[in-house]
Amino acid sequence: MFTVYGMADSGNCYKVKLALEQLGKPYRWVEVDSTKGGTRTKEFLAMNPNGKVPTLQLEDGGFLPESNAILYYLAEGTPLLPADKLGRARALQWMFFEQYSHEPYIAVARFILRYLPGGHARRAELPRLQERGHQALAVMERHLAGTPYFAGGGYSVADIALYAYTHSAAVGGFDLARYPAVSAWLGRVRSQPKHVPLG
Amino acid sequence: MFTVYGMADSGNCYKVKLALEQLGKPYRWVEVDSTKGGTRTKEFLAMNPNGKVPTLQLEDGGFLPESNAILYYLAEGTPLLPADKLGRARALQWMFFEQYSHEPYIAVARFILRYLPGGHARRAELPRLQERGHQALAVMERHLAGTPYFAGGGYSVADIALYAYTHSAAVGGFDLARYPAVSAWLGRVRSQPKHVPLG
Repeated sequence: MFTVYGMADSGNCYKVKLALEQLGKPYRWVEVDSTKGGTRTKEFLAMNPNGKVPTLQLEDGGFLPESNAILYYLAEGTPLLPADKLGRARALQWMFFEQYSHEPYIAVARFILRYLPGGHARRAELPRLQERGHQALAVMERHLAGTPYFAGGGYSVADIALYAYTHSAAVGGFDLARYPAVSAWLGRVRSQPKHVPLG
Repeated sequence: MFTVYGMADSGNCYKVKLALEQLGKPYRWVEVDSTKGGTRTKEFLAMNPNGKVPTLQLEDGGFLPESNAILYYLAEGTPLLPADKLGRARALQWMFFEQYSHEPYIAVARFILRYLPGGHARRAELPRLQERGHQALAVMERHLAGTPYFAGGGYSVADIALYAYTHSAAVGGFDLARYPAVSAWLGRVRSQPKHVPLG
């Protein structure tokens, strides 16, 4: 059985939970609070030297970090990953987009507004995070205007990866009403069998 | 034949060049200077709405962006990607590490010092970029102390992805002499058949 070391309110950890639930794979969840140093202990760093959740403990005892690498590992050979080579590359294209052009803005804005006190110096980052986050949402909007899902024609781990922080973007100050195709896609993701909410 | 839209001095674009050379796949290279707006033209955004190089034009005419998704696509089914599922996930683990925990610090420090004038306001970012970049190098050092390559026991696209900006980290002010295992690994990568330099 898999063990997920994760923080329930983290979008990156939610990706793993959602995939495991939808794949019907049993798992144990160990809550690790990264906001209180839980990923910086000697014990945690022995599992993942990069000090981040989620980290998946595999059935052989090894540890696999990086939310989107975990998604790919869990989904390979299942309907959650496209069956053709180009479809898999498209899923990865959007998963790398998510980690480089989306999460560092949309998730970080949410973190600042949700976890840091009102007068915190990091609020100065918000205008740039808003600008870049809206750029990412505009790229998604343009793509979703022509196709129901991100890769391979059907629901996949690319959708799970992008859903995690997009559906909670309002917490970071993003008004999703400006993105009708993104909003409709969020509804399609929510309506998938065995969907579970963040938290 | 593939066409690479890329900038010769960009590490992300170099990854694609190195993989194509080592796989012996013919390609055409179209130079796009992202520092002079080449990725923001209407024509370029029609190929990649996210406005980034590299973007690979496939043999069917479609476009695939995201350097590490391109690497995976090119390497699937070749010796540059591990043949087993966990090995592929390990390659992706390090490729996501590269894009989230390495490139945003080590490549950006190089960009500021190489492309921006001496008194530019973005120099203020350098202390944080140095701190985070050294964290990434320390994670690599720890991993490479016990294994010659990043994933699956042999040279793979995970090594190509991490080599691109690590081997040129000195330009960003990083002293690699502090990382003997990383330095030895750089030598192993350079000694691979059909290796070509950045540029």
